[in-house]
Amino acid sequence: MSTKLDEFRTYRTRMNNRIGQIDHLGIKRFFNLDTNAYKDGALDGKTKELLGLVASTVLRCNDCVDYHLIQCVDAGWNDGELFDALNVALVVGGSIVIPHLRHAVETIDTLRSEHKGK
Amino acid sequence: MSTKLDEFRTYRTRMNNRIGQIDHLGIKRFFNLDTNAYKDGALDGKTKELLGLVASTVLRCNDCVDYHLIQCVDAGWNDGELFDALNVALVVGGSIVIPHLRHAVETIDTLRSEHKGK
Amino acid sequence: MSTKLDEFRTYRTRMNNRIGQIDHLGIKRFFNLDTNAYKDGALDGKTKELLGLVASTVLRCNDCVDYHLIQCVDAGWNDGELFDALNVALVVGGSIVIPHLRHAVETIDTLRSEHKGK
Amino acid sequence: MSTKLDEFRTYRTRMNNRIGQIDHLGIKRFFNLDTNAYKDGALDGKTKELLGLVASTVLRCNDCVDYHLIQCVDAGWNDGELFDALNVALVVGGSIVIPHLRHAVETIDTLRSEHKGK
Amino acid sequence: MSTKLDEFRTYRTRMNNRIGQIDHLGIKRFFNLDTNAYKDGALDGKTKELLGLVASTVLRCNDCVDYHLIQCVDAGWNDGELFDALNVALVVGGSIVIPHLRHAVETIDTLRSEHKGK
Amino acid sequence: MSTKLDEFRTYRTRMNNRIGQIDHLGIKRFFNLDTNAYKDGALDGKTKELLGLVASTVLRCNDCVDYHLIQCVDAGWNDGELFDALNVALVVGGSIVIPHLRHAVETIDTLRSEHKGK
Repeated sequence: MSTKLDEFRTYRTRMNNRIGQIDHLGIKRFFNLDTNAYKDGALDGKTKELLGLVASTVLRCNDCVDYHLIQCVDAGWNDGELFDALNVALVVGGSIVIPHLRHAVETIDTLRSEHKGK
Repeated sequence: MSTKLDEFRTYRTRMNNRIGQIDHLGIKRFFNLDTNAYKDGALDGKTKELLGLVASTVLRCNDCVDYHLIQCVDAGWNDGELFDALNVALVVGGSIVIPHLRHAVETIDTLRSEHKGK
Repeated sequence: MSTKLDEFRTYRTRMNNRIGQIDHLGIKRFFNLDTNAYKDGALDGKTKELLGLVASTVLRCNDCVDYHLIQCVDAGWNDGELFDALNVALVVGGSIVIPHLRHAVETIDTLRSEHKGK
Repeated sequence: MSTKLDEFRTYRTRMNNRIGQIDHLGIKRFFNLDTNAYKDGALDGKTKELLGLVASTVLRCNDCVDYHLIQCVDAGWNDGELFDALNVALVVGGSIVIPHLRHAVETIDTLRSEHKGK
Repeated sequence: MSTKLDEFRTYRTRMNNRIGQIDHLGIKRFFNLDTNAYKDGALDGKTKELLGLVASTVLRCNDCVDYHLIQCVDAGWNDGELFDALNVALVVGGSIVIPHLRHAVETIDTLRSEHKGK
Repeated sequence: MSTKLDEFRTYRTRMNNRIGQIDHLGIKRFFNLDTNAYKDGALDGKTKELLGLVASTVLRCNDCVDYHLIQCVDAGWNDGELFDALNVALVVGGSIVIPHLRHAVETIDTLRSEHKGK
């Protein structure tokens, strides 16, 4: 069965390809900069993905939360660590973050069940 | 010479004391919750302070950036690591974050010069 | 027929239960704090729900708007009063609030028709 | 086939009519003010629609983006110009804007295909 | 001694006069709309000022908080009621609101001491 | 006499130099991307500066407003055009934008008086 997360991944891939076709130099460079910001540097990439997750959550962007959760789970953060990071986002951002916390927890559960299904 | 950071610390202490006097149960509990969110848990407190810094930067709150920078330097993050975290905030939050990046770098420099002065 | 509001209520209940299972002390305390913030105090709960509605509207969170509208209608605010509160939110938050005003009015209409159906 | 954009247009018309029925003087005046802000003045309406598009994109409101894209295409902005404006929004607002960039590009493509279908 | 609040009032009056001189029809109408939004209607003006205060606090605008606090004190809200409203703003908006809570409490104290001085 | 705008320019130059010294590749690239976003392209640079002004105003960043006003005046926008753009920002962003409108008008006046002084 196709999940909400599958739909996001399909849509994201399709539209990122379409944006690539536009071939706008500024937009392409921004996408590169965005990718590079999460690579190992003074901080390792794993830590940076958690920073990206918290930034996305307090700014209340579900698609961004989903993207960074996929990366965070890939990077090896466990559920307890993810919930602890989301708690920081909740306290910083307030109750207005709660709908995005619900979404994040649903996505974490989907990602774990995908992993079991493999 | 008194720095902008000294003024923030003095003002913060004075007004937090005043807010304590108000004795509003909900506000007091929120302040406790806020303090506890950065204690060692599934994630260690050092990592959580970095999460708090990035959240404060993308939400563009200079006082919050200052507070979390004080905590981050206390927790042992070095300049390279702090700049790498601020870069994630810059990419997520965009050029609107730049004035807060300037402020953050000024505060980091103040904190390092305080440390040398000891 | 199931409405958008029914879907929100079902999803909200399911995910709040799931978040309860996580049993993260900070998150649980935040949810308690959130519930308590709207109880009778120096201000009565009815007034506080209206404050929550306006805060949710200017912060542009449809799920939060729906939640506070359910509470506001339960608390006895009539349509004229709700529209007057939403007008304050519109003026403070600007035309970017209009899509959330549309959503709020749709939810108010759903809530009133549910009431008639009883 | 009905597109996401068609659904937005239908919903927007239906709910704007419903909001008109409410007959709240403040809300009606706000809607008039909003319409008038994009009329020819010291700046021509075409330029103002592009300003509205960029404002909507950095504030991350898909419905507002759709509305201003419809107006921008009507006003005669071409794709290259729209992408250049969206690039300004992306740099100002950061990677958190990317999901709304995807949405904007999808809407531009829908609008162009509607035009061809005529 | 001139307070921060005095400076805000002087600056606000001077610049509002200057904006009046500009004589831009849209801007003038917006200012009228803004004034009218807080007049007695289905909700009384006193309640609406409290809505304006909470909206300003969660949107984190100190000047707007000051303006609405002046109006709220004039309208007769007491300290306990104002703190209870600010607590709603704190829970909705999160710890990022705390610097604005400090500012609000300082302004309330200034307003009360002005009153005693009369 | 040194104006608030002079202070901003001095501070901005000093801290941008300091950020340059840090020599973080991601941050340097972001600053380049930011500069390039306002160069002539499908849209001319003059139009893009106005887009940057409106984006900065609705996101409520005074330093960003000042920077883009300097650029807009350099690019040849007159006062009537700037006020018309700020009116779009006011309607989109709401009364919460008013303090930034005051700031913008003050900066425009400073820029015009600097020009007369030359």
